[in-house]
Parts: sequence; structure tokens; C-alpha cells
Amino acid sequence: MLDTKPRRMQWLRVFEPLMIVTGIVQPLGTLPQIVKLYFTHSQHASGQSLTTWCIFLLATLLWVIYGLLNNKPAIYLGNIIGVLMNLLMVVGILVGVGLTF
Amino acid sequence: MLDTKPRRMQWLRVFEPLMIVTGIVQPLGTLPQIVKLYFTHSQHASGQSLTTWCIFLLATLLWVIYGLLNNKPAIYLGNIIGVLMNLLMVVGILVGVGLTF
Repeated sequence: MLDTKPRRMQWLRVFEPLMIVTGIVQPLGTLPQIVKLYFTHSQHASGQSLTTWCIFLLATLLWVIYGLLNNKPAIYLGNIIGVLMNLLMVVGILVGVGLTF
Repeated sequence: MLDTKPRRMQWLRVFEPLMIVTGIVQPLGTLPQIVKLYFTHSQHASGQSLTTWCIFLLATLLWVIYGLLNNKPAIYLGNIIGVLMNLLMVVGILVGVGLTF
């Protein structure tokens, strides 16, 4: 298995920029869910889990702090977007349904 | 500002174990959403965004590969749970609603 390490290095070179893009696209992926919650499917808001989106909000908030403490933009930038997205989900559920699980 | 660095180090000692817990709790936070989709609020399944959960599924899959390539359990363990959770959401939406945005 002498040649596995260079091959892994090649893959890492592909993955480094890919994961920076992923870190930004992943939280932005919440946008269609926000559109459904606020605009097109707001009558189904009670199907959204407040618990889930509160946990996501708290977790992304902790990742932002951790990323800032470590000076790692790759960690905090995407998670700042995540905090905004998850906050919109939590507010949307609270306004549309109130307290739910 | 001579004393900010030791203080940051103290915070990092608190945050390292906290973020390992966060990396596990964050994907498990999807469980209440899965319960709502499959059991208690399945009539509201069309309010779930297939696009959002597909993006989450693809992103967690990429993080697993990236974590394995870098030998970082802190990255791949939580994301393996994330892949399972997001896959359950995608399958639940496809079965309950079919193709939607």
C-alpha cells in the first residue's frame, strides 16, 4: 500500500476548496425551507420541529464562537450564515405556531 | 491587551470538549423533526423542503469523506449520524409527498 499516501494527498487538494464551498452552501441550503415556512407552505408550519431548529441555532452559535477563538474563517463564516438561517426558522415557527416540540 | 491570550486559551480548554459534544448533539437534533415527519405531523410533510434536506445530506456525506481523509473523528463521527438523519428526512419527504422543492 505504498502509493496510498500520495493519492490521499491528491484527494485532499480537491477537497480543501470543495469543503470551503460546502461550508457556505450547506447553511444556505436552509433557504428553500425558509421560503416554504414563511411564504408557500405556511399552513404546514406546525410540521416544523422547534426543538430541531433551536438545537441547530445553538450549535451554529457555538461553532461561530469556537471558530472565532481559533481564528478559523472556514469554521465561523459558514456558521454565521447558519445562525441567521436557523434564527429565521425558529422565529418563523414561533410566530406561525407558537410553542411546539 | 497582554492578558487576552491566556484567557483565550482558557476558553479553548472549555470549548474543545464542548464542541465534541456539539458535533454529536447537532445531528441528533434532527430526531424530533423526523418524529414529526413520520409519526405525529405527517399530514404536514409537504411543508418540508426536499431541496434543503438533500443539500444537508450531500454536505454531511462530503464532511464524512473529508473527515476520513484527514483522520479526524471529530469531523466524521457527527457527520455519519448527520448522513443517517438527513437520509431519513429525504426518504420521509419522498415517500410522503414525492418530488417537491
